[in-house]
Formats: sequence, C-alpha cells, structure tokens
Amino acid sequence: MIYRDKTKDFLEKELAKEKANYEEILKQNVKIDISRGKPCKEQLDLSMEMLNMINSVADLPAEGADIRNYGGIEGLYGLRQLFGEMLGVKAENVLVGGNSSLNMMYDTIQRCMQFGVNGSTPWNKLEKVKFLCPAPGYDRHFSLTAVFGIELITIPMDENGPIMDVVEKLVADDEAIKGIWCVPKYSNPTGIVFSDEVVDRLAKMPTKAQDFRIFWDNAYVVHDLYDSTVPLKNIYTACLANGNPNRVFIFASTSKITFPGAGVACFASSEENLKDALKTMKFQTIGPDKINQYLHLKFLQNMDGVRAIMKKHAAIIRPKFDTILNVLEDEFGTDSDIANWSNPKGGYFISYNVLNGCAKKVYELCKNAGLVITTVGDTFPYGKDDNDSNIRIAPTFTNTNQLDTACKILVCSTKIACIEKLISEK
Amino acid sequence: MIYRDKTKDFLEKELAKEKANYEEILKQNVKIDISRGKPCKEQLDLSMEMLNMINSVADLPAEGADIRNYGGIEGLYGLRQLFGEMLGVKAENVLVGGNSSLNMMYDTIQRCMQFGVNGSTPWNKLEKVKFLCPAPGYDRHFSLTAVFGIELITIPMDENGPIMDVVEKLVADDEAIKGIWCVPKYSNPTGIVFSDEVVDRLAKMPTKAQDFRIFWDNAYVVHDLYDSTVPLKNIYTACLANGNPNRVFIFASTSKITFPGAGVACFASSEENLKDALKTMKFQTIGPDKINQYLHLKFLQNMDGVRAIMKKHAAIIRPKFDTILNVLEDEFGTDSDIANWSNPKGGYFISYNVLNGCAKKVYELCKNAGLVITTVGDTFPYGKDDNDSNIRIAPTFTNTNQLDTACKILVCSTKIACIEKLISEK
Repeated sequence: MIYRDKTKDFLEKELAKEKANYEEILKQNVKIDISRGKPCKEQLDLSMEMLNMINSVADLPAEGADIRNYGGIEGLYGLRQLFGEMLGVKAENVLVGGNSSLNMMYDTIQRCMQFGVNGSTPWNKLEKVKFLCPAPGYDRHFSLTAVFGIELITIPMDENGPIMDVVEKLVADDEAIKGIWCVPKYSNPTGIVFSDEVVDRLAKMPTKAQDFRIFWDNAYVVHDLYDSTVPLKNIYTACLANGNPNRVFIFASTSKITFPGAGVACFASSEENLKDALKTMKFQTIGPDKINQYLHLKFLQNMDGVRAIMKKHAAIIRPKFDTILNVLEDEFGTDSDIANWSNPKGGYFISYNVLNGCAKKVYELCKNAGLVITTVGDTFPYGKDDNDSNIRIAPTFTNTNQLDTACKILVCSTKIACIEKLISEK
Repeated sequence: MIYRDKTKDFLEKELAKEKANYEEILKQNVKIDISRGKPCKEQLDLSMEMLNMINSVADLPAEGADIRNYGGIEGLYGLRQLFGEMLGVKAENVLVGGNSSLNMMYDTIQRCMQFGVNGSTPWNKLEKVKFLCPAPGYDRHFSLTAVFGIELITIPMDENGPIMDVVEKLVADDEAIKGIWCVPKYSNPTGIVFSDEVVDRLAKMPTKAQDFRIFWDNAYVVHDLYDSTVPLKNIYTACLANGNPNRVFIFASTSKITFPGAGVACFASSEENLKDALKTMKFQTIGPDKINQYLHLKFLQNMDGVRAIMKKHAAIIRPKFDTILNVLEDEFGTDSDIANWSNPKGGYFISYNVLNGCAKKVYELCKNAGLVITTVGDTFPYGKDDNDSNIRIAPTFTNTNQLDTACKILVCSTKIACIEKLISEK
C-alpha cells in the first residue's frame, strides 16, 4: 500500500487500528531477541560429531609435529589448504588461527597501527588515519576501527557493492585513507554480493596511500540459503592481475559452519603480507589451538564436506527467513512507501528500511513490546544512520513461531511510527 | 675440581683427554634438542581423557548460555573460580581466554601502548617507555616487549628474586619505567622462588609512574617437581594491603598442566584493571573458546584435580632433571670453578653457568656435536649475556637416555671451552 496518497482521515483510522493491535500485543508479554546473527541450537547440533573425533592417541595425526604441543604458528597445513580452496588462494597464502576472525582483524589493524605495513610508517605515527565504511555494514568492523581512533567515512552502497565512483575519488586524493571494510558476499546486513565490476575496480584503483589495504571479511563465503550460490569474483587474483598483489587482507572463519564460539578463523593474503604479519605474531603467541584445528579438518575434510554441512544449515534457517519475508509481504504487499526489505540469497540478515525518520521510533515500539532488534544506527559508522531508516533483522537464532510473532510486532510498530509521521506531515 | 689452581701442564693433559672424548662423541651422530621447555609425549598423554568429555549434547552444561555459541568474553565462571583459587584471587578478578598466556601478555602490553592504563596517557605517546627485566629470565617476555620499542633494563637476581635495592631506586626516580617482568615461582630459568620480602617490596615500593605495572607471569604456579611446594607470597593481597590495588597483572595457563598448544590461559587483576581491559577486548573478540574451557573444567574439576595431574607430570619429568643433575655432579663434583647449576624444586629448567666468557664457545661445541641448547644470551634482554656465562637446560622434552648423552656432550664441551680459556690465561 502507498500510504502517502491516502487522506488524513484514512491514515488516522489505520493508525487507530494498529494502536489497538499493539495493545493486544502488549498483553502477550513477548520476550524475543532478533538483534544478533547467532546460529540456533539445531545448527550447533550439526557439528557435535566433531567433538568425538579424537578419542585416543591413535586418533592423532600419525605424521608431523605433535598437534598437542607448542608451535605451528601458521596453522595446520591441511586446514590452510581447505580455507585456501574456500577462498580461492593457495595454502601458502593462508594463516589459520584461533576461534575468532574478529580477533584476527583486530590484530591486523593493531599491527598496522603499531608497526606499519611491510615497512610503511606505523599508522599510529600519522596525524590522521581514515577508513572507508560502505554502509549499512557490520557494526563490529566500524567499532573496532573507531576504538583505534581511525576516522570512519561512510560510503553509500547499492546492489553491486560500494559506490565505486565515490571510493575511487576518495582513495586517489587522500593519503590518510588506509583501508576499506568489505563484506563482499551476502553482505551484513544488505545481503548483496559485490559485482565483478566492483571487485575489479577495488583491485585496480590507484590509491594515494601506498599501504592502503582492503579488509575483505568473507564471512559468508559458503553461506548460501539456496542450492545455488551467487558467484563472487576472486579479489586476490584480481589484485594480482592489476599489479597490486599486497592490496587485500582476507578473513573468514567456521563460526557459522561449525561452532560460533569454538570454530577456527583464517587470515589470507599475499606471502609478503603474511611474512610481515608473522614477523610480529611470532612474539605474540605460542601458536593456535591445533587440536581444534585438527578436529575441524577431520570433520569437514574438504570443500564437499563444507558444502554438505552448509546445506544442512540452510535447511534449518531458510524457513526462518521465509517466515519473516512472508509476513512482510502479507502486511505490506509488493509495493510500500513505508517499508522495503532485502531478499537475501545467503548470509544471516534481512535488511529492512522504514520511512526516513522512523527507525528509532520503530525500535522503541518494538522494545516496549518485548522485541529486541539491532540498535538503530549500529549498521552505520559511529552508530549514526542519517536517514533513521535502516533496521537489521537477524532471523536465525529464534524459532519459527517466535519469528512470526516478532515480525508481526515489527510490522505493527512500523505502521504506527510511519503513519504517525505521515499524518504529522499532512 | 678447581681447575684454576692446576698447572698449565695438567690443564693441557685434561684438555687433550676431553678433545679425544669429543671426537668419540662426534662419531655418534647425535641429534638432540634441549633448548625449549616443552612437555614430552608422556605428559601430553596424561590429558587425553579430556578430549572424550563431550560426546553428545547431553554432556553440555545444563544451565547458562550455550557454550558452543558466541559470547562470554570473561570466560566460563567455573574456570575463573578454579584459576582464582590457583592464584589466590576471587573469580571476579580472573578473565579466562584462549590457548596462550603469551598472547594475553602481548594483548596487555598492546592495550597499554595504544590506549593507556585506566585512563593514563597511552604509552605510545610517551617519548620513552622502559621495562625492568630481572635476568636471567624468559626470552619471550623480553622479545615481546622489545618489539614494541620498549627499552629493556637488566636487573640482577639472586636466590630471592630481583635485587630490590636496584629495582626500588629505578622505579622511584624514572617515570618512563612502566613495568617489570616477573616469573615469581620456579623462575625461568633459575628455578628460584621470590621471597616474601621481595614480594612485599614489589607491592609496596613507591613508583614515579602512576601507571607502573608488575607483569607477574605465574607460569609455574603448581609445577612442583617434588611432593612439597615452595610457598610464594600472594602478590595481589600484598598490593591491596599496601594501597596499590591496581599494581599487578597476573598471568597463568594450563599449557604445562594439560596441552601446551591447546590449553587455556588466564589474566587476573583488580576489578578496575579488568574493566579497563574489557573496554577494548569487547571490540577485539567474539569471546574465548568455551568448549575447550568447559573440557578443562570437567577434566581438572578443582584444585585437587590440578594437584593430582601435576603429581603425574612430576613423576615423568623429575627423573629427567635427576639425570642431568647426576651427570653434572659426577663430572664436576660439588665444587667447580668452571660450572655451577641450579637445583630447582619445580618449573621446567636448570640454569647452568660456565666460566665467564665461555658460554658461546660451549654452545658452538654442543651444536657441532648435534646438541641444540638454548641460544646463549636468550635469557637476557636483547640476547646479551654480558658475562657470556648462562646456559638454560630444558630437560623435559627429551627421553632419559638421550638426556644422559646430551649432558655428557654439554660437560665435555664445557670442559674444553673453559680449560682452553684457563690455559690462555696462564
């Protein structure tokens, strides 16, 4: 429905109806959280078998250094191969670490700040460091950069990725711009996949800063919701082809393949970049948990194993996405001037946009009715959505019945907030 | 034997005998490494049962958040309690992290450098930062500090710990001195335990820097070689009692209790210090691997469990220490002017001192005969042992037969190097 065209009288009647609806909701004492992209219990159960894979000394690798002891800072070679295949790089271009890719990103930023990149001036010693932040994007990327005092520059996005005309102009002119955050596949929260052209332009663009880096968080690299995948061009080979072999830092993890809190994360880049990182890492740690790495290798085995478990994940979470999408379409129809939303083919989120200036009000109404959604603004640098429009929906953790209720609360709250605004403008 | 009193002729005959001995050793094609404090296979086997402790969903904790999912940045409460008991602090004073206490130390230094301590000026912004390094000490402490550009000041030690007259004077006068590294129990490599007086003076001493911190690496807190322990005064309560509640950062891990590469590490301090650390850590990580933490909790259970497994470790490694000590005593007697050594009651090392100016030569002779010992100097800041005297022996990884051979090579190399020096001085 297009509300804007309706009379004030009509809108007031609609508002009264929704407010009555909201009063009914309040009586239900709902308590639902759809704020974070957390896998649900059924997903976690898919990997329990992994914890049974070392039962005795006989189950340890027959060759090589003892995985229980110190060392092996680069990670188990077999797992480097597996991540390499997943990301389209060689095993030699991959370091496998602990349970948190966020931690590997933090460490990478920290090394750049403290030690520089391949011999460049440590970013701490520069007057100003800036990062480009295509938005809406992942709140934890933005906050982890901001905590180091890096200035965040919001970059608009469309269905192909960041608007490259804007990106290219900024990086060509400003030496203080040292990086860009990207979730290139099934982007958090919009679900878009960067187009080949965007990948190529990122790989090719001249940058004023010689130590400019793309922070390529391929968090959803194999996280399809449907049988077919949406292809993503290989950024690493694109960088090589364009004479910028050291431009990209790639991150991924098994947090949404096996266990969110006990998976394994990886950092992939050129051999020169990895060598530079290892120069410091060897002072930092005695090496990653190779027992957990070996469990992962035994359990996943190869990319067929990865694809097989990802199909099981999809079977669990796709109905949850469908529940949300069905309620939204039922309530708003295919064309609405107060709400639109993404229809992702993978990843963990639905990006939901309400009439400009209404998202915070929607958040408050939801919260008041017992529904926690991602804090409005979190998907933008400094938590500031200038349009006050974007809401991130994370359907995976909650069961389908609750999601139906959650989405109805969201819709009702949206209608109240937006219709009130439209009435005030009449 | 006291060689210095002997005639040149006698020494030359001794030297010829040892050189012949060395030629025999060369024929054996030895390949032994006693350079690092690594537990041996038999020790690792002690904890295999742990890997069987979660076989199905039924073995997961019945209450609280799902340990497989994200979150829980402070670590599992039960494990915080266990480490708290081990270190003599409350669970609330402990954060339990990943598999590497070295990584927690690195992160702590990094936070101090980048963000300051409890609101102090970030150390990166100061012209100079210095750390006190009681030596001989742990090479990885020294190198991890040096990589941040921190100046290392060597502090002499005796059997009670660092020489406190020196420490007190330095920290009272120099605001650039921000920390001191301590391995207070069964110190690496000397095996000494800090006396109560040293602990008290560290806790009490006035420091010019308000954000001075003691980095208290209690790596060998429960690592007794014999049935009785050597008591260590509680530094945390001593700091509290002296009005310096935030002075100490404590580190420990299960790396030498369960698995070196797949244990759990902890960081303990005042609640104010932990709160300050968490302010940054929450941007850094999705939380520690709680599955591994829970396995540790189930396996160790409580301090009785810890003490029980430590007795098993001691039973495996004590004979290795004995082998070394027996050879040394057989070869040098109880009084020698070319070699003396520690007789540790716990920990992982024997500290071995040869005639000043001979350690590097001993190292070369050993290496040439196929025996790798810790690089001479590594136990001192910047890898520089001014006396060229200290050698660290790590007996645990190697089997007893090999250790006997290793120690005979070490003795023969020592005699050759030292007697040559004494002859040259005649």
